[in-house]
Amino acid sequence: MTHTLVLLRHGESEWNAKNLFTGWVDVPLNEKGRGEAVRGGELIRESGLLPDVVHTSLLRRAINTAAISLDVADRHWIPVRRSWRLNERHYGALQGKNKKQTLEEYGEEQFMLWRRSFDVPPPPIEPGSEWSQDGDPRYADLGDEMPRTECLKDVIERFLPYWESAIVPDLRAGLVTLVAAHGNSLRALVKHLDGISDEDIAGLNIPTGMPLVYELDDDLEPTVPGGRYLDPDAAAAAAAAVANQGR
Amino acid sequence: MTHTLVLLRHGESEWNAKNLFTGWVDVPLNEKGRGEAVRGGELIRESGLLPDVVHTSLLRRAINTAAISLDVADRHWIPVRRSWRLNERHYGALQGKNKKQTLEEYGEEQFMLWRRSFDVPPPPIEPGSEWSQDGDPRYADLGDEMPRTECLKDVIERFLPYWESAIVPDLRAGLVTLVAAHGNSLRALVKHLDGISDEDIAGLNIPTGMPLVYELDDDLEPTVPGGRYLDPDAAAAAAAAVANQGR
Repeated sequence: MTHTLVLLRHGESEWNAKNLFTGWVDVPLNEKGRGEAVRGGELIRESGLLPDVVHTSLLRRAINTAAISLDVADRHWIPVRRSWRLNERHYGALQGKNKKQTLEEYGEEQFMLWRRSFDVPPPPIEPGSEWSQDGDPRYADLGDEMPRTECLKDVIERFLPYWESAIVPDLRAGLVTLVAAHGNSLRALVKHLDGISDEDIAGLNIPTGMPLVYELDDDLEPTVPGGRYLDPDAAAAAAAAVANQGR
Repeated sequence: MTHTLVLLRHGESEWNAKNLFTGWVDVPLNEKGRGEAVRGGELIRESGLLPDVVHTSLLRRAINTAAISLDVADRHWIPVRRSWRLNERHYGALQGKNKKQTLEEYGEEQFMLWRRSFDVPPPPIEPGSEWSQDGDPRYADLGDEMPRTECLKDVIERFLPYWESAIVPDLRAGLVTLVAAHGNSLRALVKHLDGISDEDIAGLNIPTGMPLVYELDDDLEPTVPGGRYLDPDAAAAAAAAVANQGR
């Protein structure tokens, strides 16, 4: 028996389109992003891999991507679970900054270190700054776990407890499980599933709005490494575009 | 200490606008209905009565009304619970029929009996008929509880176990609790809360898209009978319009 996991990165948001670092800032999808979510739902519907349960982050671009896709796939009625542990990487002091300007200001090396290194976080966000989440009620219970910046290693550390305690039980119960989340929380998951090294994960890009299906064996190892995209040609083209962001 | 319960009937659906009996047929909101959901969310946001948890039916007009309203109120991230026990009344063989044609075909007395009597259900829907929910996976676990038609009394009987087991615990935990549902499942709830007689409930209409707030005491009795609408003038005008449906 295999366990079916479907990953879906949210569609384009208003800040993706403006080329700003978003992180935990709760930016809505734009028109293109909503269209991507519709297409994702169509692919899920056509595949017959109908989710029995959905997990989302606490950010509206993932929440609404899931809602739109599931409505299109006629699975809007399934149980919903949410956790801050599926949130995008916290981008620290870079939140709200333009990617191209940041590249020009700090140079290629520092820019790529912040974007793609495994364990170098950006500078922490200042308390009370415009794009911090201080006082946001959805994070009121986090206490010391509330990040002020994160590298991918930090994302993995806060994501894995949710994987073990919430997602794995759904998979073991035989539920087709949809995870609607973000570029970096999904990279954390894919790194874990495929056993990708700390170095090689830098080169992995997950395109927006493209359902990525993993069939997992009883040890929760992928039967096909890397999984498979429901629309592989579109996914390959989109992944190449993501790699060029900020250029 | 009071417990805060917010009721929200879904906005206009494509079939409300066409004056068809809908029941368990899973019809989407129309443009007006989405606008009502936005307005409901604005009223919730302005009231400061921000939901900590939401309960919906398994029908997309209630699910999407909740999603839109909560997004507008910046509460899209709260926990979600869903149950078929919050579904609209099953309208039996009337599902998919035009209300005005049904009135003309069966006469005023029979029509009003089906629409507003406490314990006279419409004829049951035929197995395999176009508008039945046979084979719908969301109801696969219901077994003998799957209705083929319902009167308001039936709705109350299947709603109350969910009230006791799922909604009351959230209220007792001190959570501002939003219930996004339907004309008749909300009438069942209001009848229970306000102790309305089987006769008098016939005259009660709940308008669409208008948040209705109940503050409940420790015995879960309303501190103000009938609750209060966040926009009372609009609610009164809308309730009068509902009463004239089918005329």
